[in-house]
Amino acid sequence: MADIRLVNELYEQIAKIPIRDPHTHISPRSPAARSLDDILGYHYYTELAHSAGMSHGPLQADFPARERCRILLTFLERFDNTVQATWLVEIAQTFLGFPKNRIRAEDADWLWQRAEEVMAQPDWARHVIQRSNIEQIFLTNDFDDPLKGFDTQFYVPCLRTDDLVFRLHLPEVRERLARATGIELGRLEHVQEALERLFHHFVSHGARACAISLPPDFTPMPPEPGASIRLDAPSPELSRWVFWKLAECCRHYKLPFDLMIGVHRGVYKHGVYQGQDLFDQRTSLWQYRELFNAFPQVTFCVSILSSIQNAELVAYSWIFPNVIASGHWWYSNLPGFIRHDLSTRLQGVPKTKLVGYYSDAYKLEFVLPKFNMFRRVLAEVLADEYIQGRGWSEEAALQLARQILYDNIAVIFPPSSPRK
Amino acid sequence: MADIRLVNELYEQIAKIPIRDPHTHISPRSPAARSLDDILGYHYYTELAHSAGMSHGPLQADFPARERCRILLTFLERFDNTVQATWLVEIAQTFLGFPKNRIRAEDADWLWQRAEEVMAQPDWARHVIQRSNIEQIFLTNDFDDPLKGFDTQFYVPCLRTDDLVFRLHLPEVRERLARATGIELGRLEHVQEALERLFHHFVSHGARACAISLPPDFTPMPPEPGASIRLDAPSPELSRWVFWKLAECCRHYKLPFDLMIGVHRGVYKHGVYQGQDLFDQRTSLWQYRELFNAFPQVTFCVSILSSIQNAELVAYSWIFPNVIASGHWWYSNLPGFIRHDLSTRLQGVPKTKLVGYYSDAYKLEFVLPKFNMFRRVLAEVLADEYIQGRGWSEEAALQLARQILYDNIAVIFPPSSPRK
Amino acid sequence: MADIRLVNELYEQIAKIPIRDPHTHISPRSPAARSLDDILGYHYYTELAHSAGMSHGPLQADFPARERCRILLTFLERFDNTVQATWLVEIAQTFLGFPKNRIRAEDADWLWQRAEEVMAQPDWARHVIQRSNIEQIFLTNDFDDPLKGFDTQFYVPCLRTDDLVFRLHLPEVRERLARATGIELGRLEHVQEALERLFHHFVSHGARACAISLPPDFTPMPPEPGASIRLDAPSPELSRWVFWKLAECCRHYKLPFDLMIGVHRGVYKHGVYQGQDLFDQRTSLWQYRELFNAFPQVTFCVSILSSIQNAELVAYSWIFPNVIASGHWWYSNLPGFIRHDLSTRLQGVPKTKLVGYYSDAYKLEFVLPKFNMFRRVLAEVLADEYIQGRGWSEEAALQLARQILYDNIAVIFPPSSPRK
Repeated sequence: MADIRLVNELYEQIAKIPIRDPHTHISPRSPAARSLDDILGYHYYTELAHSAGMSHGPLQADFPARERCRILLTFLERFDNTVQATWLVEIAQTFLGFPKNRIRAEDADWLWQRAEEVMAQPDWARHVIQRSNIEQIFLTNDFDDPLKGFDTQFYVPCLRTDDLVFRLHLPEVRERLARATGIELGRLEHVQEALERLFHHFVSHGARACAISLPPDFTPMPPEPGASIRLDAPSPELSRWVFWKLAECCRHYKLPFDLMIGVHRGVYKHGVYQGQDLFDQRTSLWQYRELFNAFPQVTFCVSILSSIQNAELVAYSWIFPNVIASGHWWYSNLPGFIRHDLSTRLQGVPKTKLVGYYSDAYKLEFVLPKFNMFRRVLAEVLADEYIQGRGWSEEAALQLARQILYDNIAVIFPPSSPRK
Repeated sequence: MADIRLVNELYEQIAKIPIRDPHTHISPRSPAARSLDDILGYHYYTELAHSAGMSHGPLQADFPARERCRILLTFLERFDNTVQATWLVEIAQTFLGFPKNRIRAEDADWLWQRAEEVMAQPDWARHVIQRSNIEQIFLTNDFDDPLKGFDTQFYVPCLRTDDLVFRLHLPEVRERLARATGIELGRLEHVQEALERLFHHFVSHGARACAISLPPDFTPMPPEPGASIRLDAPSPELSRWVFWKLAECCRHYKLPFDLMIGVHRGVYKHGVYQGQDLFDQRTSLWQYRELFNAFPQVTFCVSILSSIQNAELVAYSWIFPNVIASGHWWYSNLPGFIRHDLSTRLQGVPKTKLVGYYSDAYKLEFVLPKFNMFRRVLAEVLADEYIQGRGWSEEAALQLARQILYDNIAVIFPPSSPRK
Repeated sequence: MADIRLVNELYEQIAKIPIRDPHTHISPRSPAARSLDDILGYHYYTELAHSAGMSHGPLQADFPARERCRILLTFLERFDNTVQATWLVEIAQTFLGFPKNRIRAEDADWLWQRAEEVMAQPDWARHVIQRSNIEQIFLTNDFDDPLKGFDTQFYVPCLRTDDLVFRLHLPEVRERLARATGIELGRLEHVQEALERLFHHFVSHGARACAISLPPDFTPMPPEPGASIRLDAPSPELSRWVFWKLAECCRHYKLPFDLMIGVHRGVYKHGVYQGQDLFDQRTSLWQYRELFNAFPQVTFCVSILSSIQNAELVAYSWIFPNVIASGHWWYSNLPGFIRHDLSTRLQGVPKTKLVGYYSDAYKLEFVLPKFNMFRRVLAEVLADEYIQGRGWSEEAALQLARQILYDNIAVIFPPSSPRK
C-alpha cells in the first residue's frame, strides 16, 4: 500500500547503514571470489542448475572452470525468475560493471573476462568491503581452527559445534579435538575438559558466538546423572550430552548460542555439494523449553529453516528474555517469507531482541545483494506499517532499521573476555 | 494495493459499528482501570518489559505503583515497535488526552497524574463504554461465580471450564464444585449431576457460551463405557470424560462451546504472571473430528493460538456446519497474522460462520484499541479484495463488516433459557 | 504496491494465453453443464450451503432440480463473500449473460431459464471451450476406463490410482482390475502384471500422467523383499507395495506421477457428497524422501492440500530435480493462499519446474473463472515483484506467465508412447 517513492527513499537511507553481518561462512584467508567460478560455485547456483536439469559432469573438480561457468549460465535461464538469480545480477552490475538487468548464456565470456580482470587486483577484497560498506563479518569456524592470521575485530570468530554434537563418535573428530586441546578423550569428563579449552581458546581470540545447526527432531535435555554414554557410538544421548555441555560453556564464557533449527542433512542423496539438505516442518520450539528455562543467562539467537515456524519464534522471543529472533535462514530467505516473518516479528517482539539479518555468505560479494534484498523488504514494511500506518516519522522508522541491523549486533554479541 | 483514502473511509464507517465483544476477561465488578498501574499491569506490558530485560522486582505487590509505572515505561522504549505499544498510545490519546503519538519514559508522571484524575471519576467505566461505543461484553466466569450484582444483558456470563477439565483431581477444585452445586462428589456420576447444575445456574443467569482453553495435544474422545476413572488423580481419561460431558451439557442447554486451542501452560517457568504460556505448532483440528461429528447440534467457536493452524480452521469451518472460525487469539493477534488469516477466512468460509473479533481484554480501556487494530486490517482487506477486486459497493463491503462483527454475535450466541 | 493499471494490463495479456488445464475431473462424454443444476451441484456450492445451514433434503436425487437451485441460491446469500461465489457470478456473466455482479435468491428463475436455453444448444461444450480459449483438458480416469469415444489430444487421459493403492483389498476393486486387464489376481505378482497392462493401455491411448491423492500420514517405502502381503485385507504394507509398483510403472512408461498430498477422506461423516474430506497439517514431504531418491527418472508433480506445506514444497522442488510444484489444490485454492504460495515458488524454484495452475473442475464452465482467479493473482505478483521490483519488462513478465501456465504443460507432460 505504501507509496513507492517513500519506500525508495527509505531504502536509500537504510542502505547507508554499515553492514555488520553476524553469520557468514566466509574464510578470512580467502574472503573474496577470485573468479566467476567462485561466484557461480555458490551452492544456490549449482543446486538450482542441477534441479533444472544440469548433470554432475560440469561440477567435477577437473572440469574446465570457464566452460563450467558457460554451462551454468545456460541453465541460469531456467531459473532467472528466482531471487538467487537477482543476487547474481546485482553482483555483476555492482562489482563487474555489467550494464544489463538480466544475465543470459551469451554473457558468460564477458562476465568471465571481466571477473578475471577485477578479481586479480591485489586489494579486491578490500574493494568489495568498501563498496559494500561492511564493518564487521562474523565467521563460522571449525572447532580446531587456530584463529590466527586475520583481524578478529573485523572477522569475528564463532565456534561451530556441529561436529562435536553430532559426529563425536567418529574417531577422526575425537582425534581433531584431542589435537586441538591436548586432551586425550577416554571418557566423557575428558570431553568436558576439552570443550572448556576450546571455549577458552575461542574467547581468547575474540569469539562472539557459539553456533550449531540442528535437525528438526532434536530435543535438548539435561544429562541424566549417572548415565553411562559411550563415546565411540552415535547416540541421541551423546549428542544431547555434548549439546548441554556447550550451553554450560556458553554460560560460563558468556557467549551467545546461535541455534539454527530444522535441517535434515543429506536428504537428496545425489544432490550437488551443499545441495542435499532439506527439512521436516513438524518441529517445534517446544522441544527447547527445558534449555531456555535452564540457561536464563545464555542468549539464544534462534534461526528457523522453515518460515512456518515463525509464529512460534515470534511467541518464544516475545516471552523468553533469553531468546532472540535471528535473521532469515536459507530456505526461508525469500522475500515472500521475509515479508511475512519480519512484519510479525516487528509487531510482536521487542526491537532489542531482533537480529535483523545475516548473509550466510561464503564470499564477500554476496553480502551486499543479500542485505539489499532484506533492506528492500524492510523499507516496505516500515513505510507501510510504521510511517503510513502508525504515523511514525521517517527518522524514527530509520532508527528502528538501524536498531535491528546495526545496534543490536554489538549489544547481543558483545566482546567477551576469557575467564579463569 | 488499495487506495489509502478508500481504506480510511471504510475504516471510519466500520468504526461506527457498536462493539459486541464476545470474549473478554473483564470483571463486571471492576471493569475499568483505576490507575495507570491497572493499564500497565496488563500481561502484555509486564511480559514484554521482562522479555526486554526488566527483573521481577518492580512487579512485586508491595512495590510502589507509581515507580513501577515509571520503570515499565523505561522498558517500553525497548518494545515501542510492537503493536501492543500502539494500543497503549491509543489508550493514552483517547482516554487521557495524551497529545503525542509515542510514549517515552519521561511521560510517566504526566500519564500517571492524568490517569489519577480521570479514572477517579465515579462514572469512569460508563465513560469508557460510551466513548468506545460498546454495546455488549462477554465475560469469562469461574464455574463457581454467583453471577450476581451486574447487568447480564450487558455483561454476558460465559462458563469457563478449564478448572473442571484439567484440575478436577485437585481437592480444592472438587470442593469449589461441591460448594457451588451442593453435590458431594464421590463418583463420576456425581460430577455429571454437578455439571448439569452449573449449566442450569449459568443459563438461568443469561450465559451465552461455555469456554475452555486446550493444550495442543488434547484429543476429545467419547468415554469408554464401563471404564473406571479416578477422580483424585490427574489423567487424560478424566479430562476427556469431563470435556465430553461439557459438550453434552452444551447440547442440552443450547450453549455454544468456545474452544481455544493450542496453549501449553507454564512453559517459561520464571515468566511473569500470565506471561508463561506458549504453544507447539504440531497440533491439528483433526484431533477434534470425533467431537465435531458427535455434536452436530452444538456450535463450536474455534480459536487458534498459532496462525499456522488457520489453513485448517478455514477448511474445517467451511465443511462442518457446527464449526465457527472465531477471532484472532493472543499470539495470533498481530496485524500481520490477522491480515492473512482474515483474508482467507473471508474467501473460504460462509460469512454467517465468522466471529470477526473479540478483545480478550481484562479492562474496558483495551477493547477499543484492539478492535480498532482489527478494523484497520478489515478495512484494508475489504478495500483491496471486495471493492477494488470484485467491484462491490462500499455499502456492501460495510455490510460484510457488520455481519462478522455485529450481526453474527447475536445469532451465534443467542439468549438461551434454562431447560427443565 | 503495484499500480492497478499495470496489474490490469498484465491480467488482460495473461488472459489471452490459451488454457492447458493439467488436472480436471471433467468427463469427455459430458464435459459441459446441461442445466443450472449441474453448475450448482458442484460440491463447493452444496457443501458451503450445507455448512451455512441447508439440510440434506434438497440434495436428494428425487428433489425437483429447479427448486433445489432456488434453495441453493437462498443459501448462497450466506456465503456470497467466498471466492467460490465469485466463480458462479463469473459463469453467470460470461456464459449466461447475467448483467449484475452479485447473485441473489431472486435471480434463481432467470438463471435457470437462461441456462435451459443456452445449455440445450447442441454445440454448447464447443462454445464454452472457445469462449474460454481452452486448448487442452487433462482428465482423471478410473483405471478401468476404456478411454474410447473422445479426442485424446484434447481430452488427455490420466490414470487415477487411488482405488488401486487404497482399496485393492475390496473384492469389487480386484474384480474391476481383473476385468480390465484379463488377469486373475491370485497373488501380488499378478497385480504387478495387471498394473503393467493398465499402463500399457493408458499410454497407448495417449495418457500423460498417473495421479493419486494421498492421506497426510502416508509414507512411501520400497517393498521388503520376501514380505508376504495379503491381497484381501487392508494394510499399509499393501498400499505401499502397490504405490511403489506404480512408481516403477511410471518410470518404465515415462509417465509423470501427480501426487496430491494430504487428504483425509470422510472426516465429516454426515457431509454432502464430496464435502466430507479434510486434512491434518502434520504431514511432511520428508515422508517422500525415499521415493524421490529412488526414482530420479520419474517426474513427481506435487500438490499440497494445506498451504502450510508450501514452504516444504518450495524447498523440495528447489532441490530435487524430479519434484515439480504443482498448482493450488482445493482448500489451498484461495487467493490469499495462492498469493503467498505463488510468490515464494517464483522466488525459489526454477520456472521450468512450476505447473502454474489446474482447475480441478468437473464441468467446463468452471475452468475459466478458476483460471481467471489465478491469473489475477499472478498479474499482481508479476507487477509487484518482477516489473516494479526488479525492473523486468512487461514482455518478460508475460513470458514468465506463459512459461508456468502453458509451455511447461507440454514439457512436463510430454506425449508418451507405449513400450514393448
